[in-house]
Amino acid sequence: MTVVAPGGTVGILGGGQLGRMLAMAAARLGLRTHVFAPPGDNPAFDVAHAHTCASYDDLERLAAFAEAVDVITYEFENIPAEAVARLEALRPLKPSRKALETTQDRWTEKDFVAGLGLPVVPFANVESAADAAVAAGITGMPAVLKTRRFGYDGKGQVMVRSGAGVLSAWETLGEVPCILEGFVDFACEMSVIAARNADGDFAAFDVPLNVHENHILRTSTLPSGLREETQRQAVEMTHRIADALEYEGVLAVEFFVVREEEGERLLINEIAPRVHNSGHWTEAACTVSQFEQHIRAVCGWPLGDPLRFADCEMSNILGEEVAHWRELAAEPGTVLHLYGKRQARPGRKMGHFTRLSPRR
Amino acid sequence: MTVVAPGGTVGILGGGQLGRMLAMAAARLGLRTHVFAPPGDNPAFDVAHAHTCASYDDLERLAAFAEAVDVITYEFENIPAEAVARLEALRPLKPSRKALETTQDRWTEKDFVAGLGLPVVPFANVESAADAAVAAGITGMPAVLKTRRFGYDGKGQVMVRSGAGVLSAWETLGEVPCILEGFVDFACEMSVIAARNADGDFAAFDVPLNVHENHILRTSTLPSGLREETQRQAVEMTHRIADALEYEGVLAVEFFVVREEEGERLLINEIAPRVHNSGHWTEAACTVSQFEQHIRAVCGWPLGDPLRFADCEMSNILGEEVAHWRELAAEPGTVLHLYGKRQARPGRKMGHFTRLSPRR
Repeated sequence: MTVVAPGGTVGILGGGQLGRMLAMAAARLGLRTHVFAPPGDNPAFDVAHAHTCASYDDLERLAAFAEAVDVITYEFENIPAEAVARLEALRPLKPSRKALETTQDRWTEKDFVAGLGLPVVPFANVESAADAAVAAGITGMPAVLKTRRFGYDGKGQVMVRSGAGVLSAWETLGEVPCILEGFVDFACEMSVIAARNADGDFAAFDVPLNVHENHILRTSTLPSGLREETQRQAVEMTHRIADALEYEGVLAVEFFVVREEEGERLLINEIAPRVHNSGHWTEAACTVSQFEQHIRAVCGWPLGDPLRFADCEMSNILGEEVAHWRELAAEPGTVLHLYGKRQARPGRKMGHFTRLSPRR
Repeated sequence: MTVVAPGGTVGILGGGQLGRMLAMAAARLGLRTHVFAPPGDNPAFDVAHAHTCASYDDLERLAAFAEAVDVITYEFENIPAEAVARLEALRPLKPSRKALETTQDRWTEKDFVAGLGLPVVPFANVESAADAAVAAGITGMPAVLKTRRFGYDGKGQVMVRSGAGVLSAWETLGEVPCILEGFVDFACEMSVIAARNADGDFAAFDVPLNVHENHILRTSTLPSGLREETQRQAVEMTHRIADALEYEGVLAVEFFVVREEEGERLLINEIAPRVHNSGHWTEAACTVSQFEQHIRAVCGWPLGDPLRFADCEMSNILGEEVAHWRELAAEPGTVLHLYGKRQARPGRKMGHFTRLSPRR
């Protein structure tokens, strides 16, 4: 088993806010960090011991990066396959290639989840006009056509309202491999942020209720108000997914909650093999944050206690909303976290804040 | 008034663990940092956007550093006067030169505190054999002879048990300017960690009980178990000191508590114009840490709410104790913080941990 002791170096692929928060968590554990990211606004560079600014295609720079670190992790799942192969030949990559390959393709992910007998929406592969012609029969209507890869925050998605609409939606998305997913009239969304380490230890944080606006997370609220049994089921499903992937690190599983006469029913929406926006509140309301928990898991440390000591609501700060930093900083009981990004483009995640209140 | 908004740069003098924690707190507020420190093991460099590795005598490098930042602060008070003059000519220095000059000399500091009518031990200046001959008459015996400048963690101190011993102690300390302080048989030690900003707002954290071993802080415990009235008095004295210095930033005031028949009596031992080891627990048990509070104050932000939401005990990890990192990491309810220092020399502060428990 890989153990990276204090003084060791964690390599992080990706220079955004998640990489930044991972780097700070690693530093608090006495670890050094080396961040690899392509040119751009890379706020993680500001808090890392070292950084490499290069493309994920630059296998030479990737190799030099790998050789400079003790373990490699990442803040996002869309890492090219050649880069993954190159890196894992040189250093432990955690979470593993299996976790990456399973989750970076929406169809592969759904197929994997369904294969575990866990509940997902009806889905169909759309890689050709012929696929498009039959997909609606599998999913029913309405449905959402999504690119199998590289989608995030609602990008690469088209709503489809009729069987005939699937083909034109597929053309709109550039005829790349897609997945058609049956539309669910869900009551709300929730997620499980959990960690598993090489020993098979598993620890889940409490389950937040997540509200999205324009496909971007707006708030995560604890407690979620969902039934105990629903939360327990969600954690158990996440545990099964983590075990099946022999997972090392923090993962996030997003769920739809459907309200029915008999109660609440869960559908697994998406798996992220990384720390997740809906877990940012852990830095303010738990002894160990999701970022520290991830670093512990990928470095072979004992997992931390995920106990939540306060109720809370985490809100994202999007685009120009960051101009209100001073009012937010003045709020008692509010933990403010800004990412140091230079440009406040519309909808861009500039920071977040967590309002705390005593546990009910 | 200086306001450094998100995106601005905070200059930090000193590359040790305090500078490191200040840099991380600044990063969480979307600020960049530039750390200036002489060659050596500088763990703050690992988490700073930029660093300058040069001597405090290098006025040219100091000027370039100042020009690269929006405000300058520091992790330690022993900054040479020429450096201070050079820096404050170019950028706001916070806390101010007045705070530095008052606190970097033990005699000046005691004279200042006594001048405010606040309680200190009897003290006498010892700069010559003639001073040494009369000092014991002022302080009584036993007493402690300390160098007026550059002492920390018990360095530069000699216990004196007779009037005749003052001269030889002074010779032992190299005949540099010294202060003789009457020895106090105190019951315990406590400190106030508080912040004041340019608007004159003042916010004190709860008061820890501090236990030292070999002159090095071992633990800080909250609540302190001291009388409410004693704690209130300590905070009020700190407030008076902060106002008298027109202070901007976090300061720490260390107190001796003497138990008498009538109750508890306070004596001010030392003022540190900076974040302080006895305030490290704030990162684990408060919404806003002392580090963030300091950054807020020196950047002209609103002060944070110093509310403590958990009881706790912070312990330093000294020297080879850092080898127990894995056991500490496995403790539920414990926040571990390691500084990333390379060599675990005896007594060296390598990290700290805070054990949390629900508020009584």
